[in-house]
Amino acid sequence: MRRAVDLAARGLGSTSPNPVVGCVVTDTAGNVVGEGWHERAGGPHAEVHALRAAGEAARGGTAYVTLEPCNHTGRTGPCAQALVEAGVSRVVYAVPDPNPQASGGAATLRAAGVAVTGGLLEAEAEAGNIAWLTSVRLGRPHVTWKYAATLDGRSAAADGSSRWITSAASRADVHRLRAESDAVLVGAGTLRTDDPHLAVRGIDGATQPLRVALDPRASVLPTARILDDAAPTLLVVAEDADTRHLPAGTQLLRLPLRDGRIGVHDLLGRLYARGVRSVLLEGGPTLAGAFLEGGAVDRVVGYLAPALLGAGPAALADAGVTNIAQALRLDLTEAVRLGPDLRITAVPTTVPKEH
Amino acid sequence: MRRAVDLAARGLGSTSPNPVVGCVVTDTAGNVVGEGWHERAGGPHAEVHALRAAGEAARGGTAYVTLEPCNHTGRTGPCAQALVEAGVSRVVYAVPDPNPQASGGAATLRAAGVAVTGGLLEAEAEAGNIAWLTSVRLGRPHVTWKYAATLDGRSAAADGSSRWITSAASRADVHRLRAESDAVLVGAGTLRTDDPHLAVRGIDGATQPLRVALDPRASVLPTARILDDAAPTLLVVAEDADTRHLPAGTQLLRLPLRDGRIGVHDLLGRLYARGVRSVLLEGGPTLAGAFLEGGAVDRVVGYLAPALLGAGPAALADAGVTNIAQALRLDLTEAVRLGPDLRITAVPTTVPKEH
Repeated sequence: MRRAVDLAARGLGSTSPNPVVGCVVTDTAGNVVGEGWHERAGGPHAEVHALRAAGEAARGGTAYVTLEPCNHTGRTGPCAQALVEAGVSRVVYAVPDPNPQASGGAATLRAAGVAVTGGLLEAEAEAGNIAWLTSVRLGRPHVTWKYAATLDGRSAAADGSSRWITSAASRADVHRLRAESDAVLVGAGTLRTDDPHLAVRGIDGATQPLRVALDPRASVLPTARILDDAAPTLLVVAEDADTRHLPAGTQLLRLPLRDGRIGVHDLLGRLYARGVRSVLLEGGPTLAGAFLEGGAVDRVVGYLAPALLGAGPAALADAGVTNIAQALRLDLTEAVRLGPDLRITAVPTTVPKEH
Repeated sequence: MRRAVDLAARGLGSTSPNPVVGCVVTDTAGNVVGEGWHERAGGPHAEVHALRAAGEAARGGTAYVTLEPCNHTGRTGPCAQALVEAGVSRVVYAVPDPNPQASGGAATLRAAGVAVTGGLLEAEAEAGNIAWLTSVRLGRPHVTWKYAATLDGRSAAADGSSRWITSAASRADVHRLRAESDAVLVGAGTLRTDDPHLAVRGIDGATQPLRVALDPRASVLPTARILDDAAPTLLVVAEDADTRHLPAGTQLLRLPLRDGRIGVHDLLGRLYARGVRSVLLEGGPTLAGAFLEGGAVDRVVGYLAPALLGAGPAALADAGVTNIAQALRLDLTEAVRLGPDLRITAVPTTVPKEH
């Protein structure tokens, strides 16, 4: 199963709206005879890949799958049926499928006489699939807020300069985060001041994320880097925004404004409906504050540069907190060195609010 | 020598203005026959403790000392002479003595026919004695800036509340830092708003540091916690400050103001002259900024709570930096978990300015 979890991770960033899944098939003697992972949405599921590799050797053997095999016929056939037809006598899975459309695979397998066990290495498999599992449970994409800051929490110097606060190693790591995400999101302020590109660079074979920019008044310049063809782009504008100056073919999402802003959960709901299961929130401080206040951040990844500024904009602006008792508390899940920097990963101590 | 370095550390916080020193004496067969460390200023040096424990067994043996044995007669006799009289045939030390008054011990030993080797585990021993070595080299106390902040760099919420940002484990660790320091320093703002106590609590046998508070106008209330008798206190006031309201016996240091403030290096020079070799700078953001701008911070210890505030005072105020190229760059030397928090330790990438 550990091997299956590793295989599943290879699909991160290219399977949405599907989960990442890994599968290992062993023969009657326990030898590995087939491996597979779900590589992209619309392509064969992990079980199908592994069963094809195993061929007749799967008969009487065991399939180890990181997620309960699906029971529905979508763009590909149901995996539970494929496992029955391949003649495996036992299926071991890690995480039950929370998707009501696809669950029931274990029951189907049992009804066909296959021995089924769930829960093996469940925690590891769940961690590897956390974005998809969270999104299915909450009905909105899993959101990772990424920020880069000095030890005193500033994302730029007093004059606005910020290139570069963090090291090349940290910046390369951000591209990995982008490649693992379905969408990358920035607010109007960052769009205006940084002219961000947001595409993945330096990772061979990476699936480009959808670049999403909030731009209520559609004030982006037609020459903005985010509008190039390096990756798909979605501009989120107010319902009445004048977009006549934008290049033909610019993808637009029109949303109502709430207090002059695009609502966090309005946006996330629409992205989910488009198949986006994971969002990397890249800035700026105002947008991050709105997401945090809305209970819409599931993971925080901070790149901390061992530097001090003493002045300049903070990495995070108003998140609706005025007293220390209201502080947004997190659990630190990882702290690793990246060149000279420290990358910290944390998750909210409480379950995100559902809206 | 590793054992000697460990022994030396037991003296941290109680030997000033002397260094911490550890010593292990072995007999002719290489068996450990004596151990000692410098326990407090005015008390016997490490070598004397170890030689006393060894007695006649030291004759023909070897002494391992973390610092080159001293050559001068202060409150205690010169250790070089004591080693010669004890009949050791070999002395191995880690770090040469940078103190011009005390150096020359190695030469004295060699002249008496003792084999002398320096540099064994020098880096470890230097790290263990860094405060004292830095202070002797720079002619001012070694300064550690300690701060506690959220991941977004804030030391309090918008309404000023800050109890508690960090965990009990982190706060206990601060008491260890205090106990290892000769003096603990706060600025006028912290003195006024926090009424800090600054004494060491919860550490058996700890030597209380000198509590130093900058209070140019002597506006501290006579009932301030810092003026209690839990530890000695030094109030640093302007030359013309009216101090008649203060309790009798309050220790005062009068210094000239520069642009309305007490000069960082004026203060450090006077503390050094009083025998203070290490200072723990505990706040607030303005004072820390002045120290950093003055090149007077040798180590940064940050207690990072996995929490976000989005508003509230920053842990660090103006340090004279306006552009990212002027950022005060540090090298991260340690990052450890303390309960839910992360403690990071860093040192400036460049040598502190000497003034």
